[in-house]
Amino acid sequence: MERQEGVSRVEAFSDGVLAIIITIMVLELKTPAAEGLEALWHLWPVFLAYVLSYAYVAIYWVNHHRLFGHARVITGRLLWSNMALLFTLSLVPFATAYLGEHHFSRAATLLYLAVMLLASIAYAPLQREIARTGTAGKAARTYHAATLRKGLAAILVYAAGLPLSFVSPWLGIGCAALVAVFWILPWGPLDRLFLCDDA
Amino acid sequence: MERQEGVSRVEAFSDGVLAIIITIMVLELKTPAAEGLEALWHLWPVFLAYVLSYAYVAIYWVNHHRLFGHARVITGRLLWSNMALLFTLSLVPFATAYLGEHHFSRAATLLYLAVMLLASIAYAPLQREIARTGTAGKAARTYHAATLRKGLAAILVYAAGLPLSFVSPWLGIGCAALVAVFWILPWGPLDRLFLCDDA
Amino acid sequence: MERQEGVSRVEAFSDGVLAIIITIMVLELKTPAAEGLEALWHLWPVFLAYVLSYAYVAIYWVNHHRLFGHARVITGRLLWSNMALLFTLSLVPFATAYLGEHHFSRAATLLYLAVMLLASIAYAPLQREIARTGTAGKAARTYHAATLRKGLAAILVYAAGLPLSFVSPWLGIGCAALVAVFWILPWGPLDRLFLCDDA
Amino acid sequence: MERQEGVSRVEAFSDGVLAIIITIMVLELKTPAAEGLEALWHLWPVFLAYVLSYAYVAIYWVNHHRLFGHARVITGRLLWSNMALLFTLSLVPFATAYLGEHHFSRAATLLYLAVMLLASIAYAPLQREIARTGTAGKAARTYHAATLRKGLAAILVYAAGLPLSFVSPWLGIGCAALVAVFWILPWGPLDRLFLCDDA
Repeated sequence: MERQEGVSRVEAFSDGVLAIIITIMVLELKTPAAEGLEALWHLWPVFLAYVLSYAYVAIYWVNHHRLFGHARVITGRLLWSNMALLFTLSLVPFATAYLGEHHFSRAATLLYLAVMLLASIAYAPLQREIARTGTAGKAARTYHAATLRKGLAAILVYAAGLPLSFVSPWLGIGCAALVAVFWILPWGPLDRLFLCDDA
Repeated sequence: MERQEGVSRVEAFSDGVLAIIITIMVLELKTPAAEGLEALWHLWPVFLAYVLSYAYVAIYWVNHHRLFGHARVITGRLLWSNMALLFTLSLVPFATAYLGEHHFSRAATLLYLAVMLLASIAYAPLQREIARTGTAGKAARTYHAATLRKGLAAILVYAAGLPLSFVSPWLGIGCAALVAVFWILPWGPLDRLFLCDDA
Repeated sequence: MERQEGVSRVEAFSDGVLAIIITIMVLELKTPAAEGLEALWHLWPVFLAYVLSYAYVAIYWVNHHRLFGHARVITGRLLWSNMALLFTLSLVPFATAYLGEHHFSRAATLLYLAVMLLASIAYAPLQREIARTGTAGKAARTYHAATLRKGLAAILVYAAGLPLSFVSPWLGIGCAALVAVFWILPWGPLDRLFLCDDA
Repeated sequence: MERQEGVSRVEAFSDGVLAIIITIMVLELKTPAAEGLEALWHLWPVFLAYVLSYAYVAIYWVNHHRLFGHARVITGRLLWSNMALLFTLSLVPFATAYLGEHHFSRAATLLYLAVMLLASIAYAPLQREIARTGTAGKAARTYHAATLRKGLAAILVYAAGLPLSFVSPWLGIGCAALVAVFWILPWGPLDRLFLCDDA
């Protein structure tokens, strides 16, 4: 099946939004007024929040890139579910700034996990629409089966992180970091785990 | 008719501008200094204004995307009417910030509706130019007839919102939200309404 | 002559930079703390400076778009003269903010004209390189001859604006506005003026 | 070997991020409240830091552009090493702001050199991956050999700049400027120096 011309433009717009999201987060790294390396050191929570969120948005971009490699036609549902996903991701800089400024407090961790949960939920309808209208064949089916399941696992880990943040915010952040780690790891044994009954 | 090479570059530049507009609005969501979920809750007017404006800019992007699917050649008039549209939309972040910070006051609602009115007026010459120089055929004519009429309806609703804001700002915001809703709804019965005498 | 693949990427990067330049200027339109339309009215110098600079960056984009329509190969000189042009244009938001905040004072007008002068000077080597390596033929020669002369006229008007700003800042702003007007006007009698001895 | 479709999208996203990085640095050029040219003059350290960083990011874009001219397929390693490079470069606006605001102090110079060192280290795995999976042939081998060696030289000069900054911050800045100069200079005698045992 031929790729519709409009698909590239949806990618280009999404790239623009994701590039801006990933870059404006760094504006939260405000230069300390005090001189010396000690003053810089006090920025560690803001920096750590930035590193975590950079990894997240990078993961979303990589997944979006792979997913749109399967897109073939533009439907109204695809456009709007993509817009919904970008909306949830546009909240990441705010949640990141809050996390850094409030030093990984409980409220900040809850907000951060809630935004991550929303983004992972918003990803599913977009993927379903592309699975329905995009490339066919075994490779595509395998890809969608594995990533939809990985996405579901992410949703569950984020959801578990919410109550765990009441025990300790670091447990909540740990849940977020866990999801990041298992998405960044290369395809392989982990993916076979998610593919077991399709292969 | 072949699509001129330059058309894609106009799309790419417009994508860039719209992606930045949609993303810098989130910078207005300033992190509260106070700790806790209560402090977050006080951000609701800023957040509501952001949601409304995100929906608007997303609608403009989707319409721009569909419209440029019909563009074939670049004329001076197309370039400049596109620049005029982007100019009016570049005022959206300012109007949004004002709306959120002044809690949907009368002055803020009037400014917001005025910007929306300007943008909807600026869309018409761009569409007329693409209708004149772009793809021909029944599908294109039907598309342009329906959307020009939808655009005219939007202009009238915004214009009606201006005096209604003096009764209550929420009536003005309601007008803006009404336009958003009838653009986001899928093509169908509503569009047939706007197409009645062309079909 | 075929168009080299890399040309599009130079365009895309330039589009990104110009889209950001044009959009971040609007961040200078800071929402007034005071309520009511009167407080908005006091923003007029900032708004006027924004309108002028938007027009300028839009003109540069349109010219850049037309110029790169003639580019065929990427040379080191093309890349670096393009970077130099983008550098001078990246100073426009700063000069615009200064102009608006200092209500078109003499120092602000001088800075603004100096940035505009730098940008118009930086445009020439880029155009010369594309004239040398890009599309050949009468149409290309005519285009380059006319726009190089228009560019030279712009340089002279900006240069004249510098001493005139000491008489009155508005004379300097008038020079800047004059250049904008004669670039936005459609091709026609004005261009024939610049083409007289080539046609 | 054919160029995979996805390569262009990686370029487009990288262009977006680099365009934003290069442009948000100018936001640090904050307009002085005081009137007159004297107040502008006091901005020189911020302006100088901006010029230096603009040159750096421009160099990275030019090198990235040339390097991706050799890319043919998208691998997970390519995606993630590109993301790592963009991460290090996203710290440039912060380091630049710090350098300008603290008037090229020792701590600011050390931070700046550290960011530059990280970026030059992050470039190597990306280049190695493209050398492994991209275009083959003598021209490609020569290009990779020369630029990997130039990159190694840059790493060494930055590393030397760190202890030298304890002698004088200007020695450290001099090291950074030295690297910029030898990357901007056109290909030629200098490159032959780096190519001696391959040609």
